Amino acid sequence: MSLFTKLHIAISPQFTINNLQTTKKTTSIPIYNSKIQSKHIYVSHPLVLFKSTMQSHSPRSLRSSIKCSLIDPDGGVVVDLVVPESERASRVLEAEPLPKVKLTQIDLEWVHVISEGWASPLRGFMREDEYLQSLHFNCIKIKDGSFVNMSLPIVLAIGDDVKDQIGSSSNVGLLGPNGDLVGILRSIEIFKHNKEERIARTWGTTAPGLPYVDEVITNAGNWLLGGDLEVINPIKYNDGLDHYRLSPKQLRQEFDRRQADAVFAFQLRNPVHNGHALLMNDTRKRLLDMGYKNPILLLHPLGGFTKADDVPLDVRMEQHSKVLEDGILDPETTIVSIFPSPMHYAGPTEVQWHAKARINAGANFYIVGRDPAGMGHPTEKRDLYDPDHGKKVLSMAPGLEKLNILPFKVAAYDTVAKKMAFFDPTRAKDFLFISGTKMRTYARTGENPPDGFMCPGGWKVLVNYYESLQAEEASPQQAALSV
Amino acid sequence: MSLFTKLHIAISPQFTINNLQTTKKTTSIPIYNSKIQSKHIYVSHPLVLFKSTMQSHSPRSLRSSIKCSLIDPDGGVVVDLVVPESERASRVLEAEPLPKVKLTQIDLEWVHVISEGWASPLRGFMREDEYLQSLHFNCIKIKDGSFVNMSLPIVLAIGDDVKDQIGSSSNVGLLGPNGDLVGILRSIEIFKHNKEERIARTWGTTAPGLPYVDEVITNAGNWLLGGDLEVINPIKYNDGLDHYRLSPKQLRQEFDRRQADAVFAFQLRNPVHNGHALLMNDTRKRLLDMGYKNPILLLHPLGGFTKADDVPLDVRMEQHSKVLEDGILDPETTIVSIFPSPMHYAGPTEVQWHAKARINAGANFYIVGRDPAGMGHPTEKRDLYDPDHGKKVLSMAPGLEKLNILPFKVAAYDTVAKKMAFFDPTRAKDFLFISGTKMRTYARTGENPPDGFMCPGGWKVLVNYYESLQAEEASPQQAALSV
Repeated sequence: MSLFTKLHIAISPQFTINNLQTTKKTTSIPIYNSKIQSKHIYVSHPLVLFKSTMQSHSPRSLRSSIKCSLIDPDGGVVVDLVVPESERASRVLEAEPLPKVKLTQIDLEWVHVISEGWASPLRGFMREDEYLQSLHFNCIKIKDGSFVNMSLPIVLAIGDDVKDQIGSSSNVGLLGPNGDLVGILRSIEIFKHNKEERIARTWGTTAPGLPYVDEVITNAGNWLLGGDLEVINPIKYNDGLDHYRLSPKQLRQEFDRRQADAVFAFQLRNPVHNGHALLMNDTRKRLLDMGYKNPILLLHPLGGFTKADDVPLDVRMEQHSKVLEDGILDPETTIVSIFPSPMHYAGPTEVQWHAKARINAGANFYIVGRDPAGMGHPTEKRDLYDPDHGKKVLSMAPGLEKLNILPFKVAAYDTVAKKMAFFDPTRAKDFLFISGTKMRTYARTGENPPDGFMCPGGWKVLVNYYESLQAEEASPQQAALSV
Repeated sequence: MSLFTKLHIAISPQFTINNLQTTKKTTSIPIYNSKIQSKHIYVSHPLVLFKSTMQSHSPRSLRSSIKCSLIDPDGGVVVDLVVPESERASRVLEAEPLPKVKLTQIDLEWVHVISEGWASPLRGFMREDEYLQSLHFNCIKIKDGSFVNMSLPIVLAIGDDVKDQIGSSSNVGLLGPNGDLVGILRSIEIFKHNKEERIARTWGTTAPGLPYVDEVITNAGNWLLGGDLEVINPIKYNDGLDHYRLSPKQLRQEFDRRQADAVFAFQLRNPVHNGHALLMNDTRKRLLDMGYKNPILLLHPLGGFTKADDVPLDVRMEQHSKVLEDGILDPETTIVSIFPSPMHYAGPTEVQWHAKARINAGANFYIVGRDPAGMGHPTEKRDLYDPDHGKKVLSMAPGLEKLNILPFKVAAYDTVAKKMAFFDPTRAKDFLFISGTKMRTYARTGENPPDGFMCPGGWKVLVNYYESLQAEEASPQQAALSV
């Protein structure tokens, strides 16, 4: 840990991201909103407080010359579970006689996540003690007595048959969906998979129709297999997008190479419209105003499992490229990379995971919007989660204290200025809110959104995707008709 | 905080309660089981570790002369929200024009709990920030940056009509079920009561038939009302048992008066049989072996809401009296008192509350058994919770680090020795397990349990209760027949 990361400067908290100002006030003790403080027994993290990592007596001008590594990974080091090349052959030999567990595609995504250290300090699929802490406390106590955030159970389910095959073996081999050896799980522990309890405590509902539950949990085995993971080769997908899949270590190296003195992460699983871009560019401006010399945006689309009606990863990556090509975001100060995690759609529980993983990748600022990782209730006509709970829970989550949480200002289409702008409640009627559903409807029907909603290149990617989808949907019908 | 509470002596952890021995090893750093340690990234509390509150260089003989106050209450002081007598009249006047909220009997039990400081540092019904932390993290971060455990949402539900009546008032008066003014709730906050999410995250299931949910939540209002509580008069029930209802402050005074140097709490909602007594007496012996001069047992039956087929409080209190009269527990070293909380039957989530509240009452040792606060699944033929999860979750719960957790040894009826004894797996067939259901069946059918299962005086109380119940059940039938 560099000296740099130990020190704090707290800046007056009453500034929101929209009116954040630089201030000379420096102290190592964060200042909280005294109005909130007086009424409450607890202290939340500084939700709207920009906290730099600069020492009060260290001149700001020094900062750009200091090697970055802005924020410590959870547990102090980024976990890396890929076997060194020189040892791979011996591991393959070792795995040969071991009982084998076949992974699903989503299990493999988790192997990817764990092996690269996104879940640091987790070193494998959770054993029961980690699982219970995750489920009940959303955090895990580590050896130094501090808490790391760990809000989603990262577990590997197996059935009775596989459990029987494993018998008393303490290590197992992991096979990918195509049967190749992926890795070894060591010092394993098998414990009960109470699906109902896992679902209830993770999603706050057991209603049928939760995408991850339907896909991953409902038909999974009744046992969970925990242990220490070793991965033989780095996980690759060979889908033409692997060059976007930078590991936390690679991202940290890239931030260092660019001499970033602040990294702000933007988690997304949707196309980028100009409202998002406005927010990201505005954040960079505020960080510059605060005295940072080189804030870098980590535009970080989620790359694992998503629900059927989300825009697929390859289309999103093409769309994001156009946004940078069209100059809506500045390529010089933006890194586009894929976050390999599957999506849970678990709202306030999941947003903690999204933030925590970005700490491990070196981001010290995290942008959070309305209803992060949320969705509609699967059986009732309402949002599954209170849209404000995500940022509230994030601001209070154990183990995320070192991360600066930036709540999203609402952007909408300003029909007067004919562009996306921060919503101004004093002239509410001038603003048009374009939801994701509305945006998809525009693209699907070939209708153009208002000028300035999204860059033309990015919009074209979406239109093309929905056209191809309709063509695909139409063809079986035509086939049926022709029969 | 006395010097006394700051210091620790850690004793070798491999001793279970059954083979705990005194050791000379003293250190301020707890020692953990190295076997578990090597495989895990996290550190649990010392589950089977007796940790005294004595300084390594302070001779043990000094201890009995030091004023007790064995364990600090959460937040440093025991909250006391009862208005001083001299100010009561003015509070009644002040409350007159305020909007009023009528409490149910169980709301009133919570007012009792909060007002006496069992939930310290909580000073009223939870506001949303406390509620969200409780729901997601089972703990709340307080101003010094540390966590206090807070696993159950302690909330007051109101309906739309009451919300409308409150309007923009920042204070409300609280009326008891009989319409009397009970207290004032100040600086109130009204937020949404998402019942489904509350139930799922608290119980880990949303299956119909959870006793507390059916009684308290299902028909409750869609809003929660948080705020700072003031209670006009101490809560009394006038049921002949109020003298058993010692507040945390009164219990601490009593422990001081008795010069207790260790307090071990036993939470129960069932009659005490000789297996329980064996365990409690054995615990005392172990504490004496460790060098404590005057360990005091807090026999602490839960006094609030319980499900319909549990033995009622008055019967249990009479049964407990007989256990002490018959000399099964020693009155000189036992305090019998009522814990005023309602029962949630929420297993691993609730056991944390049961332990946390006893910290506030001054207990530094907590006995935990199989499936604490558990019950059968309401719709499936299985335990609702894994019977081992309670003690595991308790041993890892944030904010309970200062409490010594004593896992329950299983006691059963030894048919050879003809008494309750610790189960010996080498001669398993000699032991008879008598469940609560089995015990109630014995009492209901008038059949005697094996000699030595329970003291005769205590058993007679149960038999009388079930006879009176059958007489009651019979009479409406007779009435129906006679119509």
